[in-house]
Amino acid sequence: MTLDRVHAARDLAAATGVDLLVVTPGSDLRYLCGYDAHAMERLTALAVPRQGEPFLVVPRLEAPMVGASPAGGLGLEVLAWDETDDPFALLAQAATGRLGAAPARVAVGDRTWALHALGVAGALPGAALELASPVVDRLRMVKTPAEVAELAAAGAAIDRVHARMGEWLRVGRTEAEVGADIAAAILAEGHVSVDFTIVGSGPNGASPHHELSDRVVEDGDVVVVDIGGETATGYRSDCTRTYAVGRAPGAEVAEWYAVLQEAQRVSTAAVRPGVTAEQVDAAARDVITAAGWGEYFIHRTGHGIGLDIHEAPYIVAGNDLPLEPGMAFSVEPGIYLPGRCGARIEDVVVCTDDGVTVLNEGPRELVVLPG
Amino acid sequence: MTLDRVHAARDLAAATGVDLLVVTPGSDLRYLCGYDAHAMERLTALAVPRQGEPFLVVPRLEAPMVGASPAGGLGLEVLAWDETDDPFALLAQAATGRLGAAPARVAVGDRTWALHALGVAGALPGAALELASPVVDRLRMVKTPAEVAELAAAGAAIDRVHARMGEWLRVGRTEAEVGADIAAAILAEGHVSVDFTIVGSGPNGASPHHELSDRVVEDGDVVVVDIGGETATGYRSDCTRTYAVGRAPGAEVAEWYAVLQEAQRVSTAAVRPGVTAEQVDAAARDVITAAGWGEYFIHRTGHGIGLDIHEAPYIVAGNDLPLEPGMAFSVEPGIYLPGRCGARIEDVVVCTDDGVTVLNEGPRELVVLPG
Repeated sequence: MTLDRVHAARDLAAATGVDLLVVTPGSDLRYLCGYDAHAMERLTALAVPRQGEPFLVVPRLEAPMVGASPAGGLGLEVLAWDETDDPFALLAQAATGRLGAAPARVAVGDRTWALHALGVAGALPGAALELASPVVDRLRMVKTPAEVAELAAAGAAIDRVHARMGEWLRVGRTEAEVGADIAAAILAEGHVSVDFTIVGSGPNGASPHHELSDRVVEDGDVVVVDIGGETATGYRSDCTRTYAVGRAPGAEVAEWYAVLQEAQRVSTAAVRPGVTAEQVDAAARDVITAAGWGEYFIHRTGHGIGLDIHEAPYIVAGNDLPLEPGMAFSVEPGIYLPGRCGARIEDVVVCTDDGVTVLNEGPRELVVLPG
Repeated sequence: MTLDRVHAARDLAAATGVDLLVVTPGSDLRYLCGYDAHAMERLTALAVPRQGEPFLVVPRLEAPMVGASPAGGLGLEVLAWDETDDPFALLAQAATGRLGAAPARVAVGDRTWALHALGVAGALPGAALELASPVVDRLRMVKTPAEVAELAAAGAAIDRVHARMGEWLRVGRTEAEVGADIAAAILAEGHVSVDFTIVGSGPNGASPHHELSDRVVEDGDVVVVDIGGETATGYRSDCTRTYAVGRAPGAEVAEWYAVLQEAQRVSTAAVRPGVTAEQVDAAARDVITAAGWGEYFIHRTGHGIGLDIHEAPYIVAGNDLPLEPGMAFSVEPGIYLPGRCGARIEDVVVCTDDGVTVLNEGPRELVVLPG
C-alpha cells in the first residue's frame, strides 16, 4: 500500500473543482488507504483536501487499529477524537486549515451514512454536498493487473462451488437446505464471507433477487443459482448458472434458454475498449428482443465488481461510459416468466487492451442434474 | 406486523414538523414495515409523508420480494421502478402529491447512503435534509415485551458460547484460531450471522476494538472476549467477558479488575426510569476514577441494542436522555493498560418499570481457564 491512490484522488478532486473528499468505512476507504474498518456510528473518515496532506479522523479507541492496518504505514496524519469530542468540527477545522479557507464543494462517499454526510455538512455550513463517486469510482473501476488477479482467484473459487452443485441441488430438498450447503462451500473454497446465495427454483426463479425459501425442489424444475462472496483481500465473486433438476425441461424452455445463452455470448463478445456500457447492454437485449422474449428481460445486463459486489460501471441503458482496459463487470442477461420459472447466465469479465477476458468457467448451457 | 409503527412514525414526524420521512434498507426499514432488504445502489425506500398514506419505492425486479415479506401484508402502496427510471423523481412526485405541496423538511435514515439521501434531496430542490433518528430512534429505542424477549433469547445464546470458552481459549492457540471456533459456536447457538469476535489477548486487549490476530495466547495472559451476532428475527447479542489463561494474574491485575467489576455492578444498579444515560455512564466512571484508573477507561459505558448492534440510546457523557422502561443497552466499562492488557465486562440490560433486568448471565469475575 502506498499513498498513490489517495494522491490520485486528490488530483482528480482538484481537477474537477472538488475542495474536499470525505470517505468513511467501506470499500472506498479500503481501496484508497487500506483501512478496512467497520461502518459504525462513531465517525471514521479519510479526508482529502484539494491541497495539503490528507488525514484520517478516527475514534481514539480505534487509533491502534489504524496503526495495525496497511494504512498505518502510509504516514497519514491521524486525528484521534475522544468520546465526547465533536469529530465533525475536528475534520472541518483540519480541512479548512489545509485549504486556507472553508471548502465550498465537499464530496462524500456514495455509501457514507447520512449521519456522517450531514454531520460533515453541518460543520461546514457554507459547503455544498455532493457525491465522491465521480472521483473515487473513476479510480476504482479501472482495475490493476493485481486486482484482476484477485477477481480471477475469486471467480475460480466460485466456479469450484458451481462444479459441485449436483451434490446439493436435488429433488426433495428445500432451497434453504441447498443454500446452506452452498454457503458452507463458498467459505470452504476460499471466501471469508458469503454475499448471497440465490436458489430460485421453479416459479421462484422468475424473481431475479429471490434468495432462499422453504420451497421443495421438484422433478423437472429449472433453478437459478446466483452465488458470490468476499475473499480475504476484499475482492468478490459473483456467478450465476441455471440448472434443470431431474427430467429435462421441454422444448419451449430449450428454445428461450438458447436465446439467453446466445445473448450472453454476444454481449460478452461485444466488450472491448471504446464500446460503451450501454452498447454491451444493448447487445444482450437486442438478441432477446429479436427472438420475442424482450419483455421478460427485466433488469440491466450487468454491474461492475471489485471490492464491492455491485459497483461502477453499470451495464445499463443510458450509461454512455466508454469501456477501458481493466474495467471488470458482470454480464448477466436473464429471462423471467412470472409464475413459471426463470434463467440467468452470469460471468464476470474484464475489458482488455483488445477485447475481453472471462473470469468464470463452467458450462453455460442448461446443465441437467440427476435429481 | 401491522402499520402501527409506520403510523406512529408519521404522527411523530408531523408533531416535530418533518414533512417527509425516507428510510432505506437496514434496521429502520425492517423495524417500521418488516421488509428486510439488502442495502444496494438501486433505491428501495419507505416514504412516510406527514399526511396521506405511506408508500414503498422498490426496483421492479424486487417487487416480488416485498410481497413475500411481512411488508407484503400491510397494504402499503408499492411504486415499482424500472432500470432506466428515476426512482427519486418517482418518490418526490408521489410524496408531493400526498402533501399537496413539495415538502420543506425531509428526514432520511441515519444509515441511508449519501447516494440515496442526496438523490432524494436532488429531486426535491427546495427541501432541507435532516436525519430521521429523532423520529425513528424515539420509537425504536423503547422495546416492547416481545422485543425484550428476542434480546433475552439472543443474550442466552451468547451466554452459552461464553460458557464453553475453556474449550477454545488455550495457551498456544492464536487469537484467530480461537475466534474461528467462537464464530462457529455463535452460529451453532442460534444466530444467523456473527457481528464480531474480539479476542484481545495480552497487549491486544488494551485496544478495545481489536478483533483477531495471529498472536499466540501465552500462559498468564489476560484476554478480552467480546462477541455477538444477529438472530433470525434481527435482534442482536453482545457480551464481553475477560478471562485469564493458565496461571492466575498477579495482585495488581486483581486489584484493578475488582474496581472494574464494581463499576459495572454500580452502573447497572443505577439503571431505572428517569435516570439519564449520562448518569449511568458517570456511575461507572466515578468508581474507576475514584480508584485512580480513570485515564484507562477510554470509551463510553454503553450503547443501545436491538435490530442494530449499536443504536440509541448511547450511554455517554453529554446524553441527558432520561431512561424509560423498555430501553435496552449495554453496560460495559473497561480498563485498558497500553502495551500490557485490558479488561471489559459487558451485559445487555433493560430498563424496567422500577429498575433493571440484566439479559446476560455468567460469572463477571476474572475467570481463570486451565490453559
